[in-house]
Amino acid sequence: MKKLMNTAGGYVDEVLAGLLAANPGMVLAGESGRNVARRAGVKAGTVGIASGGGSGHLPLFVGYVAEGLLSSCAVGNVFEGPNLASCMDAITAADGGKGVLLLFGNYGGDKMNFAMAAEMLAEEGVETRTVLGTDDIASAEPGDKAKRRGVAGIVYAYKIAGAAADAGMDLDEVARIAQKAVDSTRTIGVALTSCQLPGADAPTFEIADDEIEMGMGIHGERGIWRGKMRTASELVAEMIERITAELPLTAGQKISVLVNGLGATPLEELFLVYGETKKRLDALGVEIVLPLVGNYVTSMEMAGVSLSIITLDDELEPLLKAPAQCPFWKV
Amino acid sequence: MKKLMNTAGGYVDEVLAGLLAANPGMVLAGESGRNVARRAGVKAGTVGIASGGGSGHLPLFVGYVAEGLLSSCAVGNVFEGPNLASCMDAITAADGGKGVLLLFGNYGGDKMNFAMAAEMLAEEGVETRTVLGTDDIASAEPGDKAKRRGVAGIVYAYKIAGAAADAGMDLDEVARIAQKAVDSTRTIGVALTSCQLPGADAPTFEIADDEIEMGMGIHGERGIWRGKMRTASELVAEMIERITAELPLTAGQKISVLVNGLGATPLEELFLVYGETKKRLDALGVEIVLPLVGNYVTSMEMAGVSLSIITLDDELEPLLKAPAQCPFWKV
Repeated sequence: MKKLMNTAGGYVDEVLAGLLAANPGMVLAGESGRNVARRAGVKAGTVGIASGGGSGHLPLFVGYVAEGLLSSCAVGNVFEGPNLASCMDAITAADGGKGVLLLFGNYGGDKMNFAMAAEMLAEEGVETRTVLGTDDIASAEPGDKAKRRGVAGIVYAYKIAGAAADAGMDLDEVARIAQKAVDSTRTIGVALTSCQLPGADAPTFEIADDEIEMGMGIHGERGIWRGKMRTASELVAEMIERITAELPLTAGQKISVLVNGLGATPLEELFLVYGETKKRLDALGVEIVLPLVGNYVTSMEMAGVSLSIITLDDELEPLLKAPAQCPFWKV
Repeated sequence: MKKLMNTAGGYVDEVLAGLLAANPGMVLAGESGRNVARRAGVKAGTVGIASGGGSGHLPLFVGYVAEGLLSSCAVGNVFEGPNLASCMDAITAADGGKGVLLLFGNYGGDKMNFAMAAEMLAEEGVETRTVLGTDDIASAEPGDKAKRRGVAGIVYAYKIAGAAADAGMDLDEVARIAQKAVDSTRTIGVALTSCQLPGADAPTFEIADDEIEMGMGIHGERGIWRGKMRTASELVAEMIERITAELPLTAGQKISVLVNGLGATPLEELFLVYGETKKRLDALGVEIVLPLVGNYVTSMEMAGVSLSIITLDDELEPLLKAPAQCPFWKV
């Protein structure tokens, strides 16, 4: 696969340089060179939110450093968790004296480095709580949520927790609400093509020209089944069925829906999938609030789509709808 | 290539249905079923702006029907111009009594149907002016601008003309300013991979795994050269050199830059390209205002990037910066 790049070794830092050059509200903060924070810093008297993760998923993770969303984000190499130094920088940059929520996907390396960073900074008096994105229903059985990975649905937790922090809620409240957002969200995706790491000789995985994989993770982790291409209608039906099997939707329930492109899928097809999704959700009698359609969490040039649903109540809905100043939160 | 779709015949209408379902500010207007207008209609006492074009380029064209941008947009089949009925619907929907600017890309079918529609509606008293997007420097020599195609740079004309119309300028003024925006903009793109029409058996063109094409059009029209993959730095250098050969940039000149993804290019690579672009433009001493990085004008699942530059003066700059309410105008 052809990539618009210079050298594999410089890829992530050159991407970051371009991102920062185009977004004057973002700055590098700390000594690691791999932590991005809001230029304006943490709003006085509010909880900060630090995230982090591997590169290759833009706009996730670092694109959501913005007013009303994240305070800071540690940036790892492509498909690799952030290192300890960048996690420490992220927590430090998000600390305005009211504590920091660590909100990131449930991956081993990320957890280890954030936990170590939090422990070291606790000695300097920085208080933290941790909430993990675990929305990917294909990654483990419902009874085994501790093993579930975080995928596209984490943007709902970012938005809702970010609004809670901006509203001045304390650390325990922001953490409770972030966990509630995670617990209310389910995601499943379907991959059509592979992706390739910068500098690699071959794609991350092979998939036949007429095959797709239901439930594949955002780094190419094995999904639920691999088979022949199906219609958008059939795929949406299966995705909604799998989600509603553990997130039951009853008439009148308010929800939001994210139809997320994995990177190389035309926007046309994302809207087509949204149309199919809305038809089926309308039939269940639910009310869709603030639908999101676009590339929110990608796997570089992977083609495919994921579907996330979050159930909303009187607490989550206004936080989801609260304003945010982020070029990647397009509503 | 695999597509998230149901049937080739239903593709465009299903995409439109999903787009409208997700964007309550847009409605179908007229009998053609292929014209989208702002739900709020044309603001009283202002000029309307109608556009149109083939499908397969989202967010272009129809995604820019929004406050501060287009009033209406005629929607053609994939890579085909809009038909006469949809052009008539677009002009009618954009007419609030102060006349309508027809602003679309310089393609034969589009021109023919818009001209015929304008002529028929002139008999009913609808006044129109036409301005064509002609920013693609690879499509004809500088002395032959009437043959140049419109590509990604048209979004600058949309934004600037949209703001002029919203500010209450009259039809001649809005047309003059739109033409000035077109005349101040140049674009060149480089394609890395092909794309495929819904229902087609093969990609629109073939290109080897290690080859790229400089100057390819957004429907796969032949470019300037085809050759081996190069570094992002080399590609950006050539694109800037070609643009500045006919749009000379001097120190202190204000410009905006659009680094546009053609569909399948990871956002990481677009930011990397923006970083390279900014470095080279900084060296020229120009001042970059409101840089745009993302997928603004695509060719379905084509990978690649285009670079557009617009020179700004005291008239164009505030119009470019004026607010707009559009999920695809991400600033």
